[in-house]
Amino acid sequence: MTPSVPAAPVADASLESLVERTLGRDASAELGELLPVLVRDLEAIDWRLSEVLGSRFADLTEAARYACAMGGKRVRPLLMAAAYRALGRASIGPIVSLAAAFQLIHTATLVHDDVIDRAETRRGRPSMPRAYGVPLAIVSGDYLFVRAFELAAEYPRPIILRCGESCADLVEGEVLQEATRFDLSAGREHYFRVAERKTAAIIAAALASAGEIAEAGGAVVEALATYGRAVGIAFQIRDDLLDVFGDPDLLGKPLFSDFREGNATLVALDTHRALDPKRQAEFEHLFQLRRKRSRHLLRLRELTELAGTAPLLAREAEEWAGRAIAALAPIPTSPYRRLLERLARGAAERRF
Amino acid sequence: MTPSVPAAPVADASLESLVERTLGRDASAELGELLPVLVRDLEAIDWRLSEVLGSRFADLTEAARYACAMGGKRVRPLLMAAAYRALGRASIGPIVSLAAAFQLIHTATLVHDDVIDRAETRRGRPSMPRAYGVPLAIVSGDYLFVRAFELAAEYPRPIILRCGESCADLVEGEVLQEATRFDLSAGREHYFRVAERKTAAIIAAALASAGEIAEAGGAVVEALATYGRAVGIAFQIRDDLLDVFGDPDLLGKPLFSDFREGNATLVALDTHRALDPKRQAEFEHLFQLRRKRSRHLLRLRELTELAGTAPLLAREAEEWAGRAIAALAPIPTSPYRRLLERLARGAAERRF
Repeated sequence: MTPSVPAAPVADASLESLVERTLGRDASAELGELLPVLVRDLEAIDWRLSEVLGSRFADLTEAARYACAMGGKRVRPLLMAAAYRALGRASIGPIVSLAAAFQLIHTATLVHDDVIDRAETRRGRPSMPRAYGVPLAIVSGDYLFVRAFELAAEYPRPIILRCGESCADLVEGEVLQEATRFDLSAGREHYFRVAERKTAAIIAAALASAGEIAEAGGAVVEALATYGRAVGIAFQIRDDLLDVFGDPDLLGKPLFSDFREGNATLVALDTHRALDPKRQAEFEHLFQLRRKRSRHLLRLRELTELAGTAPLLAREAEEWAGRAIAALAPIPTSPYRRLLERLARGAAERRF
Repeated sequence: MTPSVPAAPVADASLESLVERTLGRDASAELGELLPVLVRDLEAIDWRLSEVLGSRFADLTEAARYACAMGGKRVRPLLMAAAYRALGRASIGPIVSLAAAFQLIHTATLVHDDVIDRAETRRGRPSMPRAYGVPLAIVSGDYLFVRAFELAAEYPRPIILRCGESCADLVEGEVLQEATRFDLSAGREHYFRVAERKTAAIIAAALASAGEIAEAGGAVVEALATYGRAVGIAFQIRDDLLDVFGDPDLLGKPLFSDFREGNATLVALDTHRALDPKRQAEFEHLFQLRRKRSRHLLRLRELTELAGTAPLLAREAEEWAGRAIAALAPIPTSPYRRLLERLARGAAERRF
């Protein structure tokens, strides 16, 4: 196949500033020396990604690259590159295609999520369904999945299957979440079931695969999976908090999508449980409204503040980051292991 | 993973009557002896399919199996089984997973098509988005893709890549079709570009893969691909005709979806070209209406009848079936090769 559009990195923001922002200012003193290496790693993954998205139809290539350019923080590729290098590997060449595959899968689900949630914006730009229409958004998501699996097909069968199984987890997580929309009775256990499948499983699979490709032993692979799972949970809890208390300009999308869609996040569950009976009833009533107005959403946030949910959950996210870091014990200390630690903290502390 | 719902064949209609209907009455005298073998083959593929769809969530398993049960005529698995046996193989064991994978991919695209087209019914039952809602329909389609690729991962890399490439073709075909909705200027060449990618490529890939797994030589693999491509085109032309002139009860869905959605099928293109200027303008006007009423649709059919399009296209579909049959030359004569011939004719003559 001859791509009709020349391959080019799909990132729209500078990767360097992206990595700097992800690591945080306080990390740049210690980890600044890694920055050029990481930028080159991300560039290699972006090139592979862009290359594989070439199709005979400029429309499809453009739509797919648009979707990837809005793919955001590149957390998954960063984690994979850092993990692979932490295992002493000098070049990420062998994991480039797999990192691109995981990034494509992540992007495909964002695109389909935006169709399902009728999202208007993503990363400060029109969402895929908004920019290209629902039909092309659905089909482009399928295309990203297909290209992801072609990339994964470069690897031995256990890696492909691990990748596939984590995709199935992801879909299961979405179905589980869908089944309990507007339902505050589901409880924390349910929340963690969703988050583990929807967010954590695929990060765990990406990291474990990087370990396997580096020919690390079973204990290290398992450690990376545990680390990835905990980072995923920290990331998800932080995500839920930012959706209520974040800065929409930094996030690149409006707040309150979880309240609006009735997602039973920890923010909603814990607030509901902590309020006095009268406010609890008010929270429940507002939360269950299928069409919420701005004043409803702002009142839900006010009640969340009254319940004191945010600082408790911020601490909980940090605890998960701590668990992630503890899981790294079997991996020898090195700048890249410290980077993994920093990325775990970043997942729990990030503002975007 | 322990499936929470026990595996069971996903077919709702008897496979035997399905195969009988697909082969046609006049074939049963000659090919009737093959019937029990084919039914067993389809059963094996259905079991594999149902097995792989098991998830930890009954909702998802049920939705995925519902989608597959409405998967229809089992043309792709039948073609693969017939081709594999025509190459002298006594058991289809080695291609069962791949046939299930192709069937899943086909089903996934039907599910996403029904979301895009807001279809109400499919095979006489509520469509997926109608039965399970748009979110679960989108996500279930993704799940079917994921499971398909897991099945494909059992095979050597060239087979996986051929499967992936045909999926990319399929998506490209959909994008190409989407880009020219309500546009009668696209022409026949455009139609064939769409049909080749959307319908023919995946059938060609399925059959070529069956040939490769049977360790047939390059000429036979190429012959099967050519046969598959031509059967796909015959199938598509017949599909377009049935959408205007078929029996909705037999089809299990309402007529006129192509007119309604402005698909530039050969029916529309040839009718438009054949009409006198006044009627041509009327046809164009009606075709381009974004919301067509019943009287518009019936008038479009009337104009199609006046243009004499149907018998010409019926012949064209038969010519493609003839090309498919001619392509089988490198394959030794046998009852299964005759079955492949019969299936090609069936694609061009079928009433459902």
